[in-house]
Amino acid sequence: MYRSRPKGKMDSDVLAFLSSIRHDESILYYDILGSEAHTLMLYEIGILKQQELKRILLALETAKKKHGIIDAEGAEDIHEALEAFVIKEAGVDAGGKMHTARSRNDQVVLDIRMKVRDDINELCILIAELIDALVRKAEKTKNAIMPLYTHLQQGQLGTFSHVMLAYAEALFRDFERIYNAYERINQSPLGACAIAGTSIGIDRERTAALLGFDGLIRNSLDATTSRDSFIEYVSALAILASTLARMAEDLIIWSTQEFSFIELDDRYSSTSSAMPQKKNPDPLELTRSKAAIISGRLASILCIVKGLPSGYSRDLQDIKPQLFEASSTAVTTTKVMAGVISTLTIKKRKMLDTSEKSYAISLDIAEQLVTKNGVPFRRAHKIIGALVSLAAKKNVLLAALAPEEIASALDQIEQRDISPQEMHELLKSMTPEKSIQIRRSIGSPSLAEQDKMIQLARSRLIRCREKTQERMKSVKNSYVGLAKIVSQHI
Amino acid sequence: MYRSRPKGKMDSDVLAFLSSIRHDESILYYDILGSEAHTLMLYEIGILKQQELKRILLALETAKKKHGIIDAEGAEDIHEALEAFVIKEAGVDAGGKMHTARSRNDQVVLDIRMKVRDDINELCILIAELIDALVRKAEKTKNAIMPLYTHLQQGQLGTFSHVMLAYAEALFRDFERIYNAYERINQSPLGACAIAGTSIGIDRERTAALLGFDGLIRNSLDATTSRDSFIEYVSALAILASTLARMAEDLIIWSTQEFSFIELDDRYSSTSSAMPQKKNPDPLELTRSKAAIISGRLASILCIVKGLPSGYSRDLQDIKPQLFEASSTAVTTTKVMAGVISTLTIKKRKMLDTSEKSYAISLDIAEQLVTKNGVPFRRAHKIIGALVSLAAKKNVLLAALAPEEIASALDQIEQRDISPQEMHELLKSMTPEKSIQIRRSIGSPSLAEQDKMIQLARSRLIRCREKTQERMKSVKNSYVGLAKIVSQHI
Amino acid sequence: MYRSRPKGKMDSDVLAFLSSIRHDESILYYDILGSEAHTLMLYEIGILKQQELKRILLALETAKKKHGIIDAEGAEDIHEALEAFVIKEAGVDAGGKMHTARSRNDQVVLDIRMKVRDDINELCILIAELIDALVRKAEKTKNAIMPLYTHLQQGQLGTFSHVMLAYAEALFRDFERIYNAYERINQSPLGACAIAGTSIGIDRERTAALLGFDGLIRNSLDATTSRDSFIEYVSALAILASTLARMAEDLIIWSTQEFSFIELDDRYSSTSSAMPQKKNPDPLELTRSKAAIISGRLASILCIVKGLPSGYSRDLQDIKPQLFEASSTAVTTTKVMAGVISTLTIKKRKMLDTSEKSYAISLDIAEQLVTKNGVPFRRAHKIIGALVSLAAKKNVLLAALAPEEIASALDQIEQRDISPQEMHELLKSMTPEKSIQIRRSIGSPSLAEQDKMIQLARSRLIRCREKTQERMKSVKNSYVGLAKIVSQHI
Amino acid sequence: MYRSRPKGKMDSDVLAFLSSIRHDESILYYDILGSEAHTLMLYEIGILKQQELKRILLALETAKKKHGIIDAEGAEDIHEALEAFVIKEAGVDAGGKMHTARSRNDQVVLDIRMKVRDDINELCILIAELIDALVRKAEKTKNAIMPLYTHLQQGQLGTFSHVMLAYAEALFRDFERIYNAYERINQSPLGACAIAGTSIGIDRERTAALLGFDGLIRNSLDATTSRDSFIEYVSALAILASTLARMAEDLIIWSTQEFSFIELDDRYSSTSSAMPQKKNPDPLELTRSKAAIISGRLASILCIVKGLPSGYSRDLQDIKPQLFEASSTAVTTTKVMAGVISTLTIKKRKMLDTSEKSYAISLDIAEQLVTKNGVPFRRAHKIIGALVSLAAKKNVLLAALAPEEIASALDQIEQRDISPQEMHELLKSMTPEKSIQIRRSIGSPSLAEQDKMIQLARSRLIRCREKTQERMKSVKNSYVGLAKIVSQHI
Repeated sequence: MYRSRPKGKMDSDVLAFLSSIRHDESILYYDILGSEAHTLMLYEIGILKQQELKRILLALETAKKKHGIIDAEGAEDIHEALEAFVIKEAGVDAGGKMHTARSRNDQVVLDIRMKVRDDINELCILIAELIDALVRKAEKTKNAIMPLYTHLQQGQLGTFSHVMLAYAEALFRDFERIYNAYERINQSPLGACAIAGTSIGIDRERTAALLGFDGLIRNSLDATTSRDSFIEYVSALAILASTLARMAEDLIIWSTQEFSFIELDDRYSSTSSAMPQKKNPDPLELTRSKAAIISGRLASILCIVKGLPSGYSRDLQDIKPQLFEASSTAVTTTKVMAGVISTLTIKKRKMLDTSEKSYAISLDIAEQLVTKNGVPFRRAHKIIGALVSLAAKKNVLLAALAPEEIASALDQIEQRDISPQEMHELLKSMTPEKSIQIRRSIGSPSLAEQDKMIQLARSRLIRCREKTQERMKSVKNSYVGLAKIVSQHI
Repeated sequence: MYRSRPKGKMDSDVLAFLSSIRHDESILYYDILGSEAHTLMLYEIGILKQQELKRILLALETAKKKHGIIDAEGAEDIHEALEAFVIKEAGVDAGGKMHTARSRNDQVVLDIRMKVRDDINELCILIAELIDALVRKAEKTKNAIMPLYTHLQQGQLGTFSHVMLAYAEALFRDFERIYNAYERINQSPLGACAIAGTSIGIDRERTAALLGFDGLIRNSLDATTSRDSFIEYVSALAILASTLARMAEDLIIWSTQEFSFIELDDRYSSTSSAMPQKKNPDPLELTRSKAAIISGRLASILCIVKGLPSGYSRDLQDIKPQLFEASSTAVTTTKVMAGVISTLTIKKRKMLDTSEKSYAISLDIAEQLVTKNGVPFRRAHKIIGALVSLAAKKNVLLAALAPEEIASALDQIEQRDISPQEMHELLKSMTPEKSIQIRRSIGSPSLAEQDKMIQLARSRLIRCREKTQERMKSVKNSYVGLAKIVSQHI
Repeated sequence: MYRSRPKGKMDSDVLAFLSSIRHDESILYYDILGSEAHTLMLYEIGILKQQELKRILLALETAKKKHGIIDAEGAEDIHEALEAFVIKEAGVDAGGKMHTARSRNDQVVLDIRMKVRDDINELCILIAELIDALVRKAEKTKNAIMPLYTHLQQGQLGTFSHVMLAYAEALFRDFERIYNAYERINQSPLGACAIAGTSIGIDRERTAALLGFDGLIRNSLDATTSRDSFIEYVSALAILASTLARMAEDLIIWSTQEFSFIELDDRYSSTSSAMPQKKNPDPLELTRSKAAIISGRLASILCIVKGLPSGYSRDLQDIKPQLFEASSTAVTTTKVMAGVISTLTIKKRKMLDTSEKSYAISLDIAEQLVTKNGVPFRRAHKIIGALVSLAAKKNVLLAALAPEEIASALDQIEQRDISPQEMHELLKSMTPEKSIQIRRSIGSPSLAEQDKMIQLARSRLIRCREKTQERMKSVKNSYVGLAKIVSQHI
Repeated sequence: MYRSRPKGKMDSDVLAFLSSIRHDESILYYDILGSEAHTLMLYEIGILKQQELKRILLALETAKKKHGIIDAEGAEDIHEALEAFVIKEAGVDAGGKMHTARSRNDQVVLDIRMKVRDDINELCILIAELIDALVRKAEKTKNAIMPLYTHLQQGQLGTFSHVMLAYAEALFRDFERIYNAYERINQSPLGACAIAGTSIGIDRERTAALLGFDGLIRNSLDATTSRDSFIEYVSALAILASTLARMAEDLIIWSTQEFSFIELDDRYSSTSSAMPQKKNPDPLELTRSKAAIISGRLASILCIVKGLPSGYSRDLQDIKPQLFEASSTAVTTTKVMAGVISTLTIKKRKMLDTSEKSYAISLDIAEQLVTKNGVPFRRAHKIIGALVSLAAKKNVLLAALAPEEIASALDQIEQRDISPQEMHELLKSMTPEKSIQIRRSIGSPSLAEQDKMIQLARSRLIRCREKTQERMKSVKNSYVGLAKIVSQHI
């Protein structure tokens, strides 16, 4: 339709190569809304007569209501297809005016911004739900003692709730990043036109208000060229996905036969076509790979924009599917993870067993040497290291070391800060329960700290939900308002 | 169908999250062929009776012929859907035996290998066609003198054919890489089973031969775990795409109004919805972005496999769509580029104009000082640099510098290797035509070297096509052979 | 020093492989400050006696003042090297207590957070300086008319100032992102210890305050595991780098002989070892590649964290050099770009020449048809497209088309909204100056809009600088305060 | 030194930004060799007199022998620094001729190709050594039965040797890829000059032969522009690194307290500054992260070249450090992994224990139903699935299920292919030893297959080593030959 200068049709292979139609379905709705707002404004500034306005709006409303009525055949994108439809319905004398003082260059970023705006709100709500699931799980597992791992080796003892709350903390930051990206997304580019504005006296602030934007991307070149806010959003998604992947990795490991700390619900498990005994954590494995998928999408986008000159280039079109896929992947993965968390069973007994057989109480013991016996920490470290070494060699627990064995070990490293007997008592006294009980620092897995963190998370969660809902309401209100004005004209 | 141990159905969100059905259409055909070969072998080793074999083969042939007959609803993947279809058609007593001594783990890599094998052959042919287009263009443009650029600044003069042949050279290496990847792809994993083989006396070499493989991926753990050969293929695609992107960038720049060296055919041009004068090189811009897309797919795949343990993990499923999309993108882009090259027009006159107004003859002049006047190159460089500086300041060509101006410039930098008058003569003598004519080194844009390179490319191209066609024939023959055996049993 | 359990020394190849010493120089300073704050707190809660505190602080002050005094030989990292130094200086009875209730796991993120905090502040100032340079350049080039490009084809006319201000807008968003990342960075992890806190009654809020943090990363597991805030920072750097790369690409193209819109200052130009005429925009080319470098660093980091379990893993160490290099690259590139912008010369005459010879006024003309003659835009687009097609074929300007030629062209496409004579007048009237003058929309390159945008940028710039300086002051004050307390104890 | 046209010095910040000196140390040696070959050829074709040749060669030999004699201060790169040194030593009348018919553009790719050639050979040898270590470990662990995992869940039983041999297979492919890349690397670009060859009658084949190349990169534009062969090499490194990362992940998991299948040697273990009991697999964790590092380097390089026009651009300089770092990282990681494998201890008893308590024999049992009882596999799968489900619920082994329990379970799923008593016998009979013993398929972990695979690997290893050594010898011989000719002239 736009081929006023080039002659003839495009090569059909090339058209298939160029066309973004298959990725555009998700922006058709926004393209219609944007077109309605633009058309209303054109009427208000005198470019359109009332009848022309009416005809265009009727066509647009038809397109909105009848799914699939737009003929995308042969169109380079949804913008062309929609305008062609409007011209067909409203006649070229009316419909041919819709694209006045507009270009696909400002139109497409408008649509994407409107879509991403909705995606952000949806995702914020879902992250909040996942956090909610975590906090609820934490509330029930404050007494579930388990080893915590560094380097996948048992490090210190902790509780299952502590892990849930650590996830929640990370997710709050994910929420923030995604929530903040909205500020830069929710600015209207409409009216920037092709690249350098227009001689027609359009009212950019009016269309921005009609569509629920908080402001303008003012500079017309910036508005049509820049994709930085979308990259910011995809970055935030990649980070969120890496948080989810960490959760997945933990849960995969903990559901091995060897760890057996948790069991996934059957609804969240898959099996094998060959090995009948299998119960596999497939949703978690895919959660892990999604981090790779989104991060690859981010890499593609950054590579696409690398070295592009100012002004719209067709390369930018290829950002769309990356962006939309990253967005929908993040939405689905977050939802699935909330289901996994809510339905999983923890094996408290096995966790405690493992804790009891673990040397992960070593640091607790060393700290007792520091506080009770005044041993410099570096020496305490050496002492306990030697005892663990001995116990590991004998394949026994620390508590099973006899005073004489302790004596000999301490002699060997020439540390005599504490008597073998006292050491023996100390080793025996350090049960998993005590290990957790004596923990005092802010943010540690002691019961008091768990309670404190749960309470903080609860109130933070309320604020997160409230402010997201406010935004959703504001967008919705603008759409309702637009629909009302449209209905007055048709 | 496989849920022998987990109870009940999977959560429907989770099933949607897990299912690869939407990416599996492209391997259904291969899954059927693989199943036929496997079934035949099971019969040959006595696991299946003749009637059972027949029933299964009939079902598989039905699946092959009736597109869309497989009910994918509720299936995790195409393997499950196909087996369920066979069991439905052939009964569980026969159909339930098809999956003996097989697992989705060896099955899925079998399918992918068969598909990628075909993709490689198709792409090799297309690269050859693109090279062909380049060589044909080169043959017609050996006299089209133009500046060649470094840092996008005019460097030395060359010819349009020289550029075409440089592209061809790079594409020959792309061909080689993709062609070589085939060796590691075309090895059969079938019979590796879930991860550690089987107690059933299967004949892996038989199925490999039936399906046209050159050998086995022997170790069962390696066969089901490794994805390195696919990554190799995608790497080769990413490199190919970067070659195509370089070509695209050159052509985009040369088709600006400012350069005006070439004009794209209208069939390969797009326009603007707003700016009526526009004729845009959109296919080339998308060719450029495709390099970013494929490189992002590669990044995703490398990130997916990073840190996965041995044995199939569901993460690997997410490689499939990346791989297939990279492959089809490379195919389409190569095809479009061949069309662009074949149809573009070069503006020989404008190229020569620009060459005549260029300082890109400076190195030629400096070399004349070296060979004719025995000036050390480093001094010759300094002399010509000073003269260019002067000419640029005056905004004139080198040939327009008067002897006295030359004298004064040479004095200033204290270089007296050549008299101002001689220098003046030398500057005047160096026309674009002469610049090309005097070029002597192997691989330079002189006419003789262009001819030599065209001839070399021609004969190399023949070999490339021949060896690809041989492979295609070999695969085809194995399929024909398989079909024949199948038909004997039904 | 820490090898209490493993026997003997590490393999020397392995030590070289493991050691991060070569990347740790940049955090030594912060490691010392963190150790001082931690030590003071240990004293305040009664773990250290006054004399022990003094000895440790003396050793730390020595390390701070005497560059290179730390013996890094054989150390796995700077934390070990520093503690070993303190123990050597202060004796194990005092120095051996420094690491009480601390681990390298909380220590290393503390150091990185302190360093990144400073990096962010430095970079914010530099971005502000670059914006300043752009605005100053814009102020001088409001009348410099030039074509603006889409698809690298002349699109609409604009002004050089408009481009400078578009860059400034994008950079303001870059500023915001980097500035916002600080909020999540400037939280203290100190006291999280190895992974699960401590039984020693440490005061985390005290150390956070001493070191100028705004709050705590509360959950000990989260504090030692999470790297999301660093990834956020690197993402923001990658986006900034892509803004800078776009600027670079524009300037590279505009400084070709073919465009000749600008000339780089000689101080920002490089040349060729062979071609004496060359003046190459190397700093801009490297600016472009830096976007690729940083984006690859980001990809590495996202890939490193993908699938890591909770709790410190040594993989995280490899994030450090990526992060630091991305940070310093962004700093340098921003600085160089400010220099390029400040020193470049624009060739106003050439820009105008090109504008005069351009069809980039086509949209302006089409809009005149819309506003003056009431032609629907889609028809106006067709009309002008046909005229451009004709003019291009004849290789003349639109203004050079004779009325009869216009008539024939309009006849051919059956558009008679305007008489050929009127059309001829209209084409002739549309000079570059008029094209800019009639532009009315917000954010367009009209003079009024340029002035408005300059004014907005100016005031925004002031706020950006002020709030960054406040942060710098706050950090500095905390360091001064810490130094004062330290000096009271030694 | 090359600033013949631009005036004055470069801005010092810019010089620091541009200079690649800090990454060039590793190519100085090759730059000298290349310069010697080029100089000899210039002499042979009459550009240099004998005395001039001598002076230049003397200077180059001095540079080669006296490390650090080159003054890199203020140089943009090593090529400039070396030429400046030669001119200083040999005088401009001789030294000023060295750069005749050469440019940094062909020079730098020459150097990189020579370096990468050596890197490839070194790495090939190291991969062979790692494979050797794996095969030796396999030979000792053919009887070490352990579960093999899919989805990190116990899948089938296997042997430790089987895993080692799977690694070896993957590494053979890594070897091949890297070995094959050499073919495209070992082609001489020297004589391509700046971009379009030279009018001087140089002998490109002579310099190629002197430097041990197998052929020429013929087309001068291709030779100076293309970086595809380096990207191919880095891709192959990224894939190798992902193989190593998979090995690392397996070993990390198997050395957890929960799995306890292996123990790393203390020389390959690290510990904690805080937790005295820790013995951490840090070298393996860094092996894992190296895959991410190299893959990020690859992403950077692909992003750098994306959209670059033909001809040298300074962006390409930024490929050098990525390439060199990827290369040295691969070398070190491969070496460390060979050490880890050679020195690790396997805990055969624990592996067997876990195998005995595992349901991983399920598939073996199902296959017995197929072969002994003629049960269709899909039904056998269902039967065993039900029994495992029952056993898991009761938390007992399959062998512990009583006939009546079996009867009830089979009734429930209405499968009566086998009597409960027979089933009971079958379950009891399937020991880990038997499970392995009955495995028959090619590439399975049966003893015979292990032996076969070890033997195949052994002979393949010999060929790998031989052909690498041949290449190394060939390069060495050419260097010796060059040195001999040089010595004849000085």
